Amino acid sequence: MDAAYHPTPRTTPTRHRERARYDRDTVHAILDEALICHLGYLSAGEPVVLPTTHARLGETLYLHGSSGSGPVQAAGAAPAGLPVCVTVTLLDGLVLARAALHHSMNFRSVVVRGAARVVGDPAERSRALNRLLDHVAPGRSADCRAPDARELAATGVLAVDLAEVSAKVRTGGPVDDPEDQSLPHWAGVVPLSLAAGEPRAAADLDPGIPLPDYLGRTRAPYSRYR
Amino acid sequence: MDAAYHPTPRTTPTRHRERARYDRDTVHAILDEALICHLGYLSAGEPVVLPTTHARLGETLYLHGSSGSGPVQAAGAAPAGLPVCVTVTLLDGLVLARAALHHSMNFRSVVVRGAARVVGDPAERSRALNRLLDHVAPGRSADCRAPDARELAATGVLAVDLAEVSAKVRTGGPVDDPEDQSLPHWAGVVPLSLAAGEPRAAADLDPGIPLPDYLGRTRAPYSRYR
Repeated sequence: MDAAYHPTPRTTPTRHRERARYDRDTVHAILDEALICHLGYLSAGEPVVLPTTHARLGETLYLHGSSGSGPVQAAGAAPAGLPVCVTVTLLDGLVLARAALHHSMNFRSVVVRGAARVVGDPAERSRALNRLLDHVAPGRSADCRAPDARELAATGVLAVDLAEVSAKVRTGGPVDDPEDQSLPHWAGVVPLSLAAGEPRAAADLDPGIPLPDYLGRTRAPYSRYR
Repeated sequence: MDAAYHPTPRTTPTRHRERARYDRDTVHAILDEALICHLGYLSAGEPVVLPTTHARLGETLYLHGSSGSGPVQAAGAAPAGLPVCVTVTLLDGLVLARAALHHSMNFRSVVVRGAARVVGDPAERSRALNRLLDHVAPGRSADCRAPDARELAATGVLAVDLAEVSAKVRTGGPVDDPEDQSLPHWAGVVPLSLAAGEPRAAADLDPGIPLPDYLGRTRAPYSRYR
């Protein structure tokens, strides 16, 4: 397998092409760190964007939802799969430049174009649902009550192949025009990151059950902020 | 003006209707707190979702981009406006339930359906661009170098009326089935929030220029984490 995705006209940005990344390591790292994605699809011919959770397994991105939800229904009705765009964005900082229009954000984003298929195979469904849990808290799928037949029937799993994929990354400080650099305005970066607070046990939790290790230091944001 | 947006079939969720909110105060607060949105539109008939910045002014949502960017070009070519869906999501926590399929996220999101028009009026363009700066750092538009004619010509401003709008809010702990509550799995919430770090001045910044007050305590996330 190539180390990078092949750019297509649809995954080549119209500007700031120097920010585009196609290597799988970069793309995978962004998809794996982000806790949510934004799923775009067409409903009655118009665009809809919904936040949802995702998880990557190799070169497949999985999403899930109620079997009655818009995207699951639409994908089920699309024999060749539902055209989707799944976008993930990690916000890393505000970039304040001296010039109004040079303000920017530091970010890492991934855009996945493709067709979402409804996963029917029970083994693949099970792997995907476990991965969705472990994406958020590595190990959690082995430490909870597995879905029963009724719950599985009420849940739709969607899969999108990671084929037409690009990342975009901006890092570093503001880039002002040379003639603006002596202006009397503060310029720099305000770092931003998602931070996890102290876990709060459910009110009815048996106090003898300890906080699991997988909410400790194994995954961003927990690993970075506790 | 009514205190709430009118629900339409397109802004009524298919499930968890109890999480839907239509009151303007809730919608405005979410739009105003979020630093980025995800803009969905059609390109060659297929959905595209791009992260970008936004700002609200009354009942109008403004976005901007290079005048050559996909959405600005598409909106310019659509006499009745470009059908868009602008979605904003604030992630507030991971919700771990005993049952796999009761895991959830605490979040506040807003979905705006509408048609994006290209703003042509110079006064409205100027107000929108100032607001985009002040959205991120209140007061910044008065403390930077204003755009010149060349920069303005290279920038497209889009406006979407806030008319067909809904928010969705989940708060609180896990909701497990009664028969699962004695299972030996930790259950609770891991709070999440966007945190600002210590601002880093640009390498070439005159050290005599102090950090401005508007990066202090006036706006989340700065107000909450410093």
